[in-house]
Amino acid sequence: MRVRLDLAYDGTAFAGWAAQRDTRTVQGELESALAVLARSEDLPRVTVAGRTDAGVHARGQVAHADLPGTLLEDRLLRRLNGVLPHDVRVLRVAPAPPGFDARFSALSRTYTYRVADAPELADPLRRHDTLQWPRPLELGSLQAASEGLVGLHDFAAFCRRREGATSVRTLQRLDWVRDATGVLVATVQADAFCHSMVRSLVGALLAVGEGTRPVDWPASLLSRDGRASEVTVAPPYGLCLEHVAYPPDDELLARQEQTRRVRDAL
Amino acid sequence: MRVRLDLAYDGTAFAGWAAQRDTRTVQGELESALAVLARSEDLPRVTVAGRTDAGVHARGQVAHADLPGTLLEDRLLRRLNGVLPHDVRVLRVAPAPPGFDARFSALSRTYTYRVADAPELADPLRRHDTLQWPRPLELGSLQAASEGLVGLHDFAAFCRRREGATSVRTLQRLDWVRDATGVLVATVQADAFCHSMVRSLVGALLAVGEGTRPVDWPASLLSRDGRASEVTVAPPYGLCLEHVAYPPDDELLARQEQTRRVRDAL
Repeated sequence: MRVRLDLAYDGTAFAGWAAQRDTRTVQGELESALAVLARSEDLPRVTVAGRTDAGVHARGQVAHADLPGTLLEDRLLRRLNGVLPHDVRVLRVAPAPPGFDARFSALSRTYTYRVADAPELADPLRRHDTLQWPRPLELGSLQAASEGLVGLHDFAAFCRRREGATSVRTLQRLDWVRDATGVLVATVQADAFCHSMVRSLVGALLAVGEGTRPVDWPASLLSRDGRASEVTVAPPYGLCLEHVAYPPDDELLARQEQTRRVRDAL
Repeated sequence: MRVRLDLAYDGTAFAGWAAQRDTRTVQGELESALAVLARSEDLPRVTVAGRTDAGVHARGQVAHADLPGTLLEDRLLRRLNGVLPHDVRVLRVAPAPPGFDARFSALSRTYTYRVADAPELADPLRRHDTLQWPRPLELGSLQAASEGLVGLHDFAAFCRRREGATSVRTLQRLDWVRDATGVLVATVQADAFCHSMVRSLVGALLAVGEGTRPVDWPASLLSRDGRASEVTVAPPYGLCLEHVAYPPDDELLARQEQTRRVRDAL
Protein backbone atom coordinates (compact mmCIF):
# COMPACT_ATOMS: atom_id res chain seq x y z
CA MET A 1 0.00 0.00 0.00
CA ARG A 2 1.50 3.34 -1.07
CA VAL A 3 1.06 6.05 1.54
CA ARG A 4 1.50 9.81 1.15
CA LEU A 5 3.14 11.50 4.16
CA ASP A 6 3.06 15.26 4.73
CA LEU A 7 5.95 16.34 6.94
CA ALA A 8 7.37 19.29 8.83
CA TYR A 9 10.80 19.50 10.42
CA ASP A 10 13.22 21.82 12.14
CA GLY A 11 16.36 21.24 10.08
CA THR A 12 18.73 22.65 12.72
CA ALA A 13 19.94 19.33 14.10
CA PHE A 14 19.81 17.32 10.85
CA ALA A 15 22.49 16.75 8.22
CA GLY A 16 19.73 17.31 5.65
CA TRP A 17 17.07 15.01 4.24
CA ALA A 18 19.02 12.21 2.60
CA ALA A 19 19.97 9.17 4.69
CA GLN A 20 23.71 8.87 5.36
CA ARG A 21 25.57 6.41 7.53
CA ASP A 22 26.32 7.57 11.10
CA THR A 23 24.62 10.93 10.58
CA ARG A 24 21.27 12.20 11.80
CA THR A 25 19.02 12.84 8.79
CA VAL A 26 15.26 13.31 8.37
CA GLN A 27 14.99 10.35 6.01
CA GLY A 28 16.95 8.19 8.46
CA GLU A 29 14.66 9.10 11.39
CA LEU A 30 11.52 8.56 9.36
CA GLU A 31 12.59 5.22 7.91
CA SER A 32 13.66 3.99 11.36
CA ALA A 33 10.30 5.02 12.84
CA LEU A 34 8.43 3.21 10.04
CA ALA A 35 10.56 0.10 10.55
CA VAL A 36 9.70 0.09 14.28
CA LEU A 37 5.97 0.30 13.52
CA ALA A 38 6.15 -2.26 10.70
CA ARG A 39 8.17 -4.59 13.00
CA SER A 40 10.37 -5.08 10.00
CA GLU A 41 14.13 -5.37 9.73
CA ASP A 42 14.02 -4.08 6.19
CA LEU A 43 13.89 -0.30 6.35
CA PRO A 44 10.89 0.94 4.37
CA ARG A 45 12.25 3.29 1.69
CA VAL A 46 10.85 6.81 1.75
CA THR A 47 10.87 8.98 -1.41
CA VAL A 48 10.62 12.74 -0.98
CA ALA A 49 9.60 15.73 -3.11
CA GLY A 50 12.45 18.04 -2.05
CA ARG A 51 15.81 16.72 -0.82
CA THR A 52 16.60 19.58 1.56
CA ASP A 53 20.22 20.38 2.53
CA ALA A 54 21.66 20.33 6.04
CA GLY A 55 19.99 22.97 8.20
CA VAL A 56 17.10 23.67 5.81
CA HIS A 57 13.60 23.39 7.31
CA ALA A 58 10.25 22.17 5.98
CA ARG A 59 6.64 22.92 6.83
CA GLY A 60 5.15 21.32 3.70
CA GLN A 61 7.44 18.46 2.69
CA VAL A 62 5.75 15.51 0.93
CA ALA A 63 6.99 11.92 0.80
CA HIS A 64 5.69 8.50 -0.12
CA ALA A 65 6.44 5.02 1.16
CA ASP A 66 5.20 1.57 0.22
CA LEU A 67 4.09 0.02 3.50
CA PRO A 68 2.58 -3.28 4.61
CA GLY A 69 -1.22 -2.99 4.53
CA THR A 70 -1.27 -3.89 8.23
CA LEU A 71 -0.16 -0.35 9.14
CA LEU A 72 -3.55 1.26 9.49
CA GLU A 73 -3.66 4.77 8.20
CA ASP A 74 -5.62 6.66 10.88
CA ARG A 75 -3.58 5.28 13.77
CA LEU A 76 -0.35 5.57 11.81
CA LEU A 77 -0.22 9.38 12.20
CA ARG A 78 -0.41 9.22 15.99
CA ARG A 79 1.92 6.21 16.28
CA LEU A 80 4.54 7.74 13.98
CA ASN A 81 4.55 11.01 15.91
CA GLY A 82 4.87 9.00 19.11
CA VAL A 83 8.04 7.32 17.83
CA LEU A 84 9.62 10.26 15.96
CA PRO A 85 11.79 12.89 17.69
CA HIS A 86 10.12 16.26 18.33
CA ASP A 87 11.96 18.07 15.52
CA VAL A 88 10.10 16.01 12.87
CA ARG A 89 6.30 15.83 12.76
CA VAL A 90 4.02 13.95 10.42
CA LEU A 91 1.15 16.32 9.60
CA ARG A 92 -1.03 13.99 7.50
CA VAL A 93 -1.06 10.37 6.35
CA ALA A 94 -3.27 9.21 3.50
CA PRO A 95 -3.37 6.36 0.97
CA ALA A 96 -1.64 7.66 -2.16
CA PRO A 97 -3.89 7.94 -5.22
CA PRO A 98 -2.98 5.66 -8.19
CA GLY A 99 0.15 6.84 -10.01
CA PHE A 100 1.32 9.10 -7.15
CA ASP A 101 5.07 9.55 -6.70
CA ALA A 102 6.12 12.25 -4.21
CA ARG A 103 9.08 13.23 -6.39
CA PHE A 104 8.05 12.66 -9.99
CA SER A 105 4.39 13.70 -9.71
CA ALA A 106 5.28 17.08 -8.20
CA LEU A 107 4.47 20.10 -10.38
CA SER A 108 6.28 22.68 -8.27
CA ARG A 109 8.08 23.35 -5.00
CA THR A 110 7.65 26.56 -2.97
CA TYR A 111 10.23 27.78 -0.47
CA THR A 112 10.39 30.82 1.81
CA TYR A 113 13.51 32.60 3.05
CA ARG A 114 13.37 34.89 6.13
CA VAL A 115 15.72 37.84 6.72
CA ALA A 116 15.69 40.34 9.62
CA ASP A 117 17.64 43.45 8.61
CA ALA A 118 17.66 45.51 11.82
CA PRO A 119 18.65 44.79 15.43
CA GLU A 120 15.12 45.56 16.67
CA LEU A 121 13.73 42.80 14.41
CA ALA A 122 15.77 40.13 16.21
CA ASP A 123 13.45 37.50 17.68
CA PRO A 124 15.41 34.89 19.64
CA LEU A 125 12.48 32.48 19.20
CA ARG A 126 13.03 32.64 15.43
CA ARG A 127 16.85 32.64 15.46
CA HIS A 128 16.89 29.12 13.99
CA ASP A 129 14.86 30.05 10.88
CA THR A 130 15.70 33.71 10.25
CA LEU A 131 18.90 35.20 8.86
CA GLN A 132 19.97 38.26 10.86
CA TRP A 133 21.42 40.72 8.31
CA PRO A 134 23.74 43.45 9.62
CA ARG A 135 22.65 46.21 7.21
CA PRO A 136 19.25 47.59 6.10
CA LEU A 137 17.80 46.03 2.94
CA GLU A 138 15.64 47.90 0.45
CA LEU A 139 12.42 46.04 -0.38
CA GLY A 140 11.96 47.90 -3.70
CA SER A 141 15.32 46.83 -5.12
CA LEU A 142 14.98 43.25 -3.82
CA GLN A 143 11.67 43.09 -5.64
CA ALA A 144 12.91 44.73 -8.87
CA ALA A 145 15.96 42.45 -9.08
CA SER A 146 13.77 39.38 -8.45
CA GLU A 147 11.46 40.16 -11.36
CA GLY A 148 14.38 39.79 -13.79
CA LEU A 149 14.89 36.18 -12.70
CA VAL A 150 11.36 34.84 -13.14
CA GLY A 151 10.73 32.59 -16.16
CA LEU A 152 12.40 29.74 -18.05
CA HIS A 153 16.18 30.14 -17.82
CA ASP A 154 19.40 28.20 -17.48
CA PHE A 155 20.23 28.84 -13.83
CA ALA A 156 23.77 27.40 -14.12
CA ALA A 157 25.20 30.53 -12.45
CA PHE A 158 23.14 29.70 -9.34
CA CYS A 159 23.70 25.91 -9.26
CA ARG A 160 26.26 23.65 -7.74
CA ARG A 161 27.21 21.53 -10.72
CA ARG A 162 26.17 17.91 -10.73
CA GLU A 163 27.13 15.39 -13.38
CA GLY A 164 24.56 15.19 -16.15
CA ALA A 165 21.99 17.32 -14.31
CA THR A 166 20.27 20.12 -16.19
CA SER A 167 20.16 23.58 -14.69
CA VAL A 168 17.30 24.74 -16.94
CA ARG A 169 14.34 25.53 -14.70
CA THR A 170 11.13 27.55 -14.78
CA LEU A 171 11.15 30.03 -11.91
CA GLN A 172 7.43 30.59 -11.47
CA ARG A 173 7.54 33.07 -8.62
CA LEU A 174 10.12 35.09 -6.68
CA ASP A 175 8.83 37.95 -4.56
CA TRP A 176 9.51 39.68 -1.27
CA VAL A 177 7.29 41.15 1.44
CA ARG A 178 7.81 42.57 4.89
CA ASP A 179 5.57 40.53 7.17
CA ALA A 180 3.56 41.97 10.08
CA THR A 181 6.65 41.86 12.32
CA GLY A 182 8.90 43.67 9.79
CA VAL A 183 10.87 40.58 8.73
CA LEU A 184 11.60 40.26 4.99
CA VAL A 185 10.19 37.04 3.54
CA ALA A 186 11.05 35.83 0.02
CA THR A 187 8.72 33.31 -1.65
CA VAL A 188 10.39 31.25 -4.37
CA GLN A 189 8.54 28.75 -6.56
CA ALA A 190 9.82 26.62 -9.45
CA ASP A 191 9.03 23.35 -11.19
CA ALA A 192 12.22 22.07 -9.57
CA PHE A 193 15.44 23.53 -8.17
CA CYS A 194 19.03 22.54 -8.81
CA HIS A 195 21.35 22.18 -5.86
CA SER A 196 21.69 25.31 -3.64
CA MET A 197 19.68 27.34 -6.17
CA VAL A 198 17.30 29.12 -3.77
CA ARG A 199 20.12 30.05 -1.42
CA SER A 200 22.25 31.33 -4.33
CA LEU A 201 19.37 33.43 -5.69
CA VAL A 202 18.73 34.87 -2.21
CA GLY A 203 22.45 35.53 -1.71
CA ALA A 204 22.64 37.48 -4.98
CA LEU A 205 19.49 39.44 -4.17
CA LEU A 206 20.71 40.43 -0.69
CA ALA A 207 23.76 42.05 -2.34
CA VAL A 208 21.31 44.14 -4.38
CA GLY A 209 19.05 44.88 -1.39
CA GLU A 210 21.91 46.37 0.62
CA GLY A 211 23.15 48.39 -2.37
CA THR A 212 26.41 46.50 -3.06
CA ARG A 213 25.27 45.36 -6.52
CA PRO A 214 23.01 47.01 -9.14
CA VAL A 215 19.41 45.84 -9.61
CA ASP A 216 20.12 44.14 -12.96
CA TRP A 217 23.12 42.18 -11.69
CA PRO A 218 21.40 38.88 -10.70
CA ALA A 219 19.60 38.58 -14.06
CA SER A 220 22.84 39.41 -15.91
CA LEU A 221 24.34 36.21 -14.47
CA LEU A 222 21.74 34.09 -16.30
CA SER A 223 23.96 34.18 -19.39
CA ARG A 224 26.73 32.25 -17.62
CA ASP A 225 27.15 28.57 -18.41
CA GLY A 226 28.73 27.75 -15.04
CA ARG A 227 28.52 28.69 -11.42
CA ALA A 228 29.10 32.39 -10.64
CA SER A 229 31.72 32.46 -7.90
CA GLU A 230 30.82 36.09 -7.01
CA VAL A 231 27.46 34.91 -5.70
CA THR A 232 27.44 34.28 -1.96
CA VAL A 233 25.21 31.34 -1.05
CA ALA A 234 22.88 32.46 1.77
CA PRO A 235 23.02 30.26 4.90
CA PRO A 236 20.64 27.29 5.05
CA TYR A 237 18.76 28.12 8.25
CA GLY A 238 16.67 30.96 6.72
CA LEU A 239 15.20 28.54 4.17
CA CYS A 240 12.01 26.49 4.56
CA LEU A 241 10.18 24.21 2.09
CA GLU A 242 6.58 25.41 2.42
CA HIS A 243 4.58 23.59 -0.23
CA VAL A 244 4.70 20.98 -2.98
CA ALA A 245 1.99 21.12 -5.66
CA TYR A 246 0.59 18.04 -7.44
CA PRO A 247 -1.89 17.61 -10.29
CA PRO A 248 -5.45 16.49 -9.51
CA ASP A 249 -5.66 12.76 -8.64
CA ASP A 250 -7.23 11.86 -11.99
CA GLU A 251 -4.25 13.27 -13.89
CA LEU A 252 -1.57 11.40 -11.92
CA LEU A 253 -1.44 8.33 -14.18
CA ALA A 254 -1.08 10.50 -17.29
CA ARG A 255 1.72 12.47 -15.60
CA GLN A 256 3.44 9.23 -14.60
CA GLU A 257 3.44 8.16 -18.28
CA GLN A 258 4.72 11.59 -19.34
CA THR A 259 7.64 11.74 -16.85
CA ARG A 260 8.56 8.13 -17.71
CA ARG A 261 8.89 9.09 -21.35
CA VAL A 262 11.02 12.14 -20.47
CA ARG A 263 13.29 10.04 -18.25
CA ASP A 264 13.63 7.32 -20.90
CA ALA A 265 14.65 9.95 -23.44
CA LEU A 266 17.51 11.21 -21.24
CA MET B 1 22.71 57.70 33.51
CA ARG B 2 19.45 55.73 33.43
CA VAL B 3 19.07 53.64 30.27
CA ARG B 4 15.93 51.97 28.90
CA LEU B 5 16.56 48.52 27.38
CA ASP B 6 14.05 46.76 25.13
CA LEU B 7 14.62 43.02 25.19
CA ALA B 8 13.58 39.77 23.54
CA TYR B 9 14.40 36.27 24.74
CA ASP B 10 13.72 32.62 24.15
CA GLY B 11 12.80 31.48 27.66
CA THR B 12 13.40 27.78 26.95
CA ALA B 13 16.81 27.52 28.58
CA PHE B 14 16.24 30.08 31.38
CA ALA B 15 14.97 29.57 34.92
CA GLY B 16 12.91 32.72 34.34
CA TRP B 17 13.79 36.41 34.60
CA ALA B 18 14.84 36.89 38.20
CA ALA B 19 18.50 36.37 39.12
CA GLN B 20 19.15 33.30 41.28
CA ARG B 21 22.41 31.83 42.44
CA ASP B 22 23.79 28.98 40.29
CA THR B 23 20.91 29.17 37.82
CA ARG B 24 20.76 30.59 34.32
CA THR B 25 18.35 33.55 34.29
CA VAL B 26 17.77 36.44 31.88
CA GLN B 27 18.50 39.03 34.55
CA GLY B 28 21.70 37.19 35.46
CA GLU B 29 22.93 37.10 31.85
CA LEU B 30 22.06 40.74 31.25
CA GLU B 31 23.68 42.02 34.45
CA SER B 32 26.83 39.98 33.74
CA ALA B 33 27.02 41.39 30.22
CA LEU B 34 26.63 44.96 31.52
CA ALA B 35 29.31 44.35 34.15
CA VAL B 36 31.73 43.14 31.45
CA LEU B 37 31.12 46.28 29.37
CA ALA B 38 31.26 48.61 32.39
CA ARG B 39 34.49 46.87 33.51
CA SER B 40 32.94 46.87 36.93
CA GLU B 41 32.95 44.25 39.64
CA ASP B 42 29.67 45.59 40.98
CA LEU B 43 26.87 44.05 38.92
CA PRO B 44 24.69 46.84 37.52
CA ARG B 45 21.15 46.18 38.80
CA VAL B 46 18.50 45.78 36.11
CA THR B 47 14.81 46.45 36.85
CA VAL B 48 12.22 44.87 34.59
CA ALA B 49 8.57 45.47 33.68
CA GLY B 50 7.46 41.83 33.75
CA ARG B 51 9.23 39.19 35.85
CA THR B 52 8.56 36.22 33.57
CA ASP B 53 8.54 32.65 34.94
CA ALA B 54 10.83 29.82 33.87
CA GLY B 55 10.21 28.92 30.22
CA VAL B 56 8.17 32.06 29.40
CA HIS B 57 9.40 34.09 26.40
CA ALA B 58 9.51 37.80 25.61
CA ARG B 59 9.52 39.84 22.44
CA GLY B 60 8.73 43.20 24.08
CA GLN B 61 10.25 43.14 27.55
CA VAL B 62 11.39 46.51 28.95
CA ALA B 63 14.04 47.09 31.60
CA HIS B 64 16.07 49.94 33.01
CA ALA B 65 19.54 50.15 34.47
CA ASP B 66 21.59 52.99 35.94
CA LEU B 67 24.90 52.84 34.11
CA PRO B 68 28.17 54.77 34.13
CA GLY B 69 27.93 57.60 31.57
CA THR B 70 31.01 56.15 29.84
CA LEU B 71 28.88 53.40 28.26
CA LEU B 72 27.92 55.19 25.10
CA GLU B 73 24.38 54.47 24.01
CA ASP B 74 24.71 53.83 20.24
CA ARG B 75 27.59 51.41 20.56
CA LEU B 76 26.07 49.82 23.67
CA LEU B 77 23.41 47.95 21.62
CA ARG B 78 25.98 46.25 19.39
CA ARG B 79 28.43 45.58 22.22
CA LEU B 80 25.76 44.10 24.49
CA ASN B 81 24.50 41.77 21.75
CA GLY B 82 28.10 40.76 21.11
CA VAL B 83 28.52 39.67 24.73
CA LEU B 84 25.04 38.20 25.36
CA PRO B 85 24.13 34.60 24.46
CA HIS B 86 21.99 34.17 21.33
CA ASP B 87 18.78 33.42 23.24
CA VAL B 88 18.66 37.02 24.60
CA ARG B 89 18.76 40.05 22.32
CA VAL B 90 18.72 43.73 23.11
CA LEU B 91 16.41 45.36 20.56
CA ARG B 92 16.86 49.02 21.54
CA VAL B 93 18.88 51.09 23.96
CA ALA B 94 17.95 54.68 24.79
CA PRO B 95 18.51 57.19 27.58
CA ALA B 96 15.47 56.90 29.86
CA PRO B 97 13.31 60.02 30.06
CA PRO B 98 13.13 61.75 33.49
CA GLY B 99 11.00 59.78 35.97
CA PHE B 100 11.11 56.54 33.96
CA ASP B 101 11.03 53.26 35.89
CA ALA B 102 10.55 50.11 33.77
CA ARG B 103 8.35 48.52 36.45
CA PHE B 104 6.48 51.34 38.16
CA SER B 105 5.92 53.59 35.14
CA ALA B 106 4.29 50.76 33.14
CA LEU B 107 0.59 51.24 32.38
CA SER B 108 -0.05 47.73 31.04
CA ARG B 109 1.54 44.46 29.99
CA THR B 110 0.41 42.46 26.94
CA TYR B 111 1.06 38.73 26.55
CA THR B 112 0.20 36.23 23.82
CA TYR B 113 -0.40 32.50 24.23
CA ARG B 114 -0.14 30.13 21.22
CA VAL B 115 -2.03 26.84 20.92
CA ALA B 116 -2.08 24.39 17.98
CA ASP B 117 -5.13 22.12 18.26
CA ALA B 118 -4.62 19.65 15.39
CA PRO B 119 -1.73 17.40 14.29
CA GLU B 120 -1.49 19.17 10.91
CA LEU B 121 -0.84 22.48 12.71
CA ALA B 122 2.34 21.12 14.30
CA ASP B 123 5.33 23.24 13.28
CA PRO B 124 8.57 21.84 14.69
CA LEU B 125 10.15 25.29 14.27
CA ARG B 126 7.59 26.69 16.74
CA ARG B 127 7.55 23.77 19.17
CA HIS B 128 9.29 25.89 21.81
CA ASP B 129 6.62 28.62 21.83
CA THR B 130 3.40 26.79 20.92
CA LEU B 131 1.31 24.43 23.05
CA GLN B 132 0.27 21.34 21.04
CA TRP B 133 -3.27 20.49 22.25
CA PRO B 134 -4.54 16.96 21.60
CA ARG B 135 -8.19 17.86 20.92
CA PRO B 136 -9.90 20.46 18.70
CA LEU B 137 -10.74 23.78 20.35
CA GLU B 138 -13.74 25.89 19.48
CA LEU B 139 -12.86 29.53 18.81
CA GLY B 140 -16.40 30.77 19.52
CA SER B 141 -16.55 29.34 23.03
CA LEU B 142 -12.97 30.42 23.84
CA GLN B 143 -13.98 33.92 22.85
CA ALA B 144 -17.33 33.92 24.69
CA ALA B 145 -15.77 32.63 27.92
CA SER B 146 -12.99 35.23 27.66
CA GLU B 147 -15.44 38.13 27.48
CA GLY B 148 -16.76 37.27 30.95
CA LEU B 149 -13.30 37.81 32.44
CA VAL B 150 -12.52 41.28 31.10
CA GLY B 151 -12.75 44.19 33.54
CA LEU B 152 -11.81 45.03 37.15
CA HIS B 153 -12.01 41.86 39.26
CA ASP B 154 -10.34 40.04 42.11
CA PHE B 155 -8.48 37.32 40.21
CA ALA B 156 -7.62 35.35 43.39
CA ALA B 157 -8.93 32.13 41.78
CA PHE B 158 -6.28 32.50 39.06
CA CYS B 159 -3.34 33.58 41.25
CA ARG B 160 -0.64 31.79 43.18
CA ARG B 161 -0.95 33.44 46.54
CA ARG B 162 1.81 35.73 47.66
CA GLU B 163 2.04 37.34 51.07
CA GLY B 164 0.45 40.78 51.13
CA ALA B 165 0.01 40.95 47.35
CA THR B 166 -3.33 42.05 45.96
CA SER B 167 -5.02 39.96 43.26
CA VAL B 168 -7.32 42.80 42.15
CA ARG B 169 -6.46 43.61 38.56
CA THR B 170 -8.00 45.28 35.52
CA LEU B 171 -8.05 42.80 32.65
CA GLN B 172 -8.15 45.22 29.70
CA ARG B 173 -8.21 42.69 26.89
CA LEU B 174 -8.55 38.93 26.44
CA ASP B 175 -9.34 37.68 22.96
CA TRP B 176 -8.53 34.81 20.62
CA VAL B 177 -7.89 34.54 16.88
CA ARG B 178 -6.75 31.83 14.52
CA ASP B 179 -3.71 33.25 12.76
CA ALA B 180 -2.90 32.76 9.07
CA THR B 181 -1.40 29.32 9.80
CA GLY B 182 -4.43 28.12 11.83
CA VAL B 183 -2.77 28.43 15.24
CA LEU B 184 -4.96 29.84 18.04
CA VAL B 185 -3.43 32.98 19.59
CA ALA B 186 -4.78 34.57 22.78
CA THR B 187 -3.91 38.20 23.49
CA VAL B 188 -4.11 39.13 27.17
CA GLN B 189 -3.58 42.65 28.50
CA ALA B 190 -3.85 44.00 32.05
CA ASP B 191 -2.48 46.82 34.18
CA ALA B 192 -0.48 44.09 35.93
CA PHE B 193 -0.72 40.34 36.48
CA CYS B 194 -0.43 38.33 39.65
CA HIS B 195 1.74 35.22 39.63
CA SER B 196 0.78 32.57 37.02
CA MET B 197 -2.40 34.55 36.17
CA VAL B 198 -2.17 34.45 32.36
CA ARG B 199 -1.39 30.73 32.34
CA SER B 200 -4.27 30.02 34.76
CA LEU B 201 -6.72 32.05 32.66
CA VAL B 202 -5.57 30.21 29.51
CA GLY B 203 -5.80 26.84 31.28
CA ALA B 204 -9.40 27.53 32.35
CA LEU B 205 -10.33 28.72 28.85
CA LEU B 206 -8.86 25.65 27.13
CA ALA B 207 -11.18 23.47 29.25
CA VAL B 208 -14.07 25.52 27.81
CA GLY B 209 -12.70 25.44 24.27
CA GLU B 210 -12.55 21.64 24.19
CA GLY B 211 -16.04 21.36 25.72
CA THR B 212 -15.07 19.99 29.15
CA ARG B 213 -16.43 23.06 30.99
CA PRO B 214 -19.34 25.41 30.23
CA VAL B 215 -18.73 28.86 28.77
CA ASP B 216 -19.62 30.69 32.01
CA TRP B 217 -17.31 28.58 34.19
CA PRO B 218 -14.13 30.75 34.14
CA ALA B 219 -16.06 33.93 35.07
CA SER B 220 -17.93 32.04 37.82
CA LEU B 221 -14.57 31.48 39.56
CA LEU B 222 -14.09 35.24 40.00
CA SER B 223 -16.20 35.05 43.19
CA ARG B 224 -13.58 32.83 44.91
CA ASP B 225 -11.30 34.43 47.47
CA GLY B 226 -8.51 31.88 46.94
CA ARG B 227 -6.88 29.85 44.24
CA ALA B 228 -9.24 27.50 42.33
CA SER B 229 -7.53 24.11 42.38
CA GLU B 230 -9.72 22.85 39.48
CA VAL B 231 -7.94 25.26 37.14
CA THR B 232 -5.04 23.67 35.28
CA VAL B 233 -2.18 26.12 34.78
CA ALA B 234 -1.19 26.05 31.07
CA PRO B 235 2.50 25.28 30.46
CA PRO B 236 4.89 28.25 30.31
CA TYR B 237 6.34 27.76 26.84
CA GLY B 238 3.19 28.92 24.97
CA LEU B 239 3.42 32.31 26.69
CA CYS B 240 5.27 35.40 25.43
CA LEU B 241 5.45 38.97 26.80
CA GLU B 242 4.77 41.06 23.69
CA HIS B 243 4.48 44.66 24.84
CA VAL B 244 4.70 47.01 27.80
CA ALA B 245 2.89 50.35 27.54
CA TYR B 246 4.11 53.56 29.19
CA PRO B 247 2.63 57.04 29.46
CA PRO B 248 4.04 59.84 27.27
CA ASP B 249 7.42 61.11 28.50
CA ASP B 250 5.97 64.35 29.85
CA GLU B 251 3.63 62.44 32.18
CA LEU B 252 6.30 60.18 33.70
CA LEU B 253 7.20 62.46 36.61
CA ALA B 254 3.54 62.85 37.56
CA ARG B 255 3.07 59.07 37.41
CA GLN B 256 6.19 58.58 39.57
CA GLU B 257 4.64 60.84 42.21
CA GLN B 258 1.31 58.99 41.97
CA THR B 259 2.79 55.45 42.32
CA ARG B 260 4.99 56.65 45.21
CA ARG B 261 1.88 57.81 47.07
CA VAL B 262 0.12 54.49 46.41
CA ARG B 263 3.14 52.53 47.62
CA ASP B 264 3.52 54.70 50.73
CA ALA B 265 -0.14 54.09 51.56
CA LEU B 266 0.26 50.27 51.49
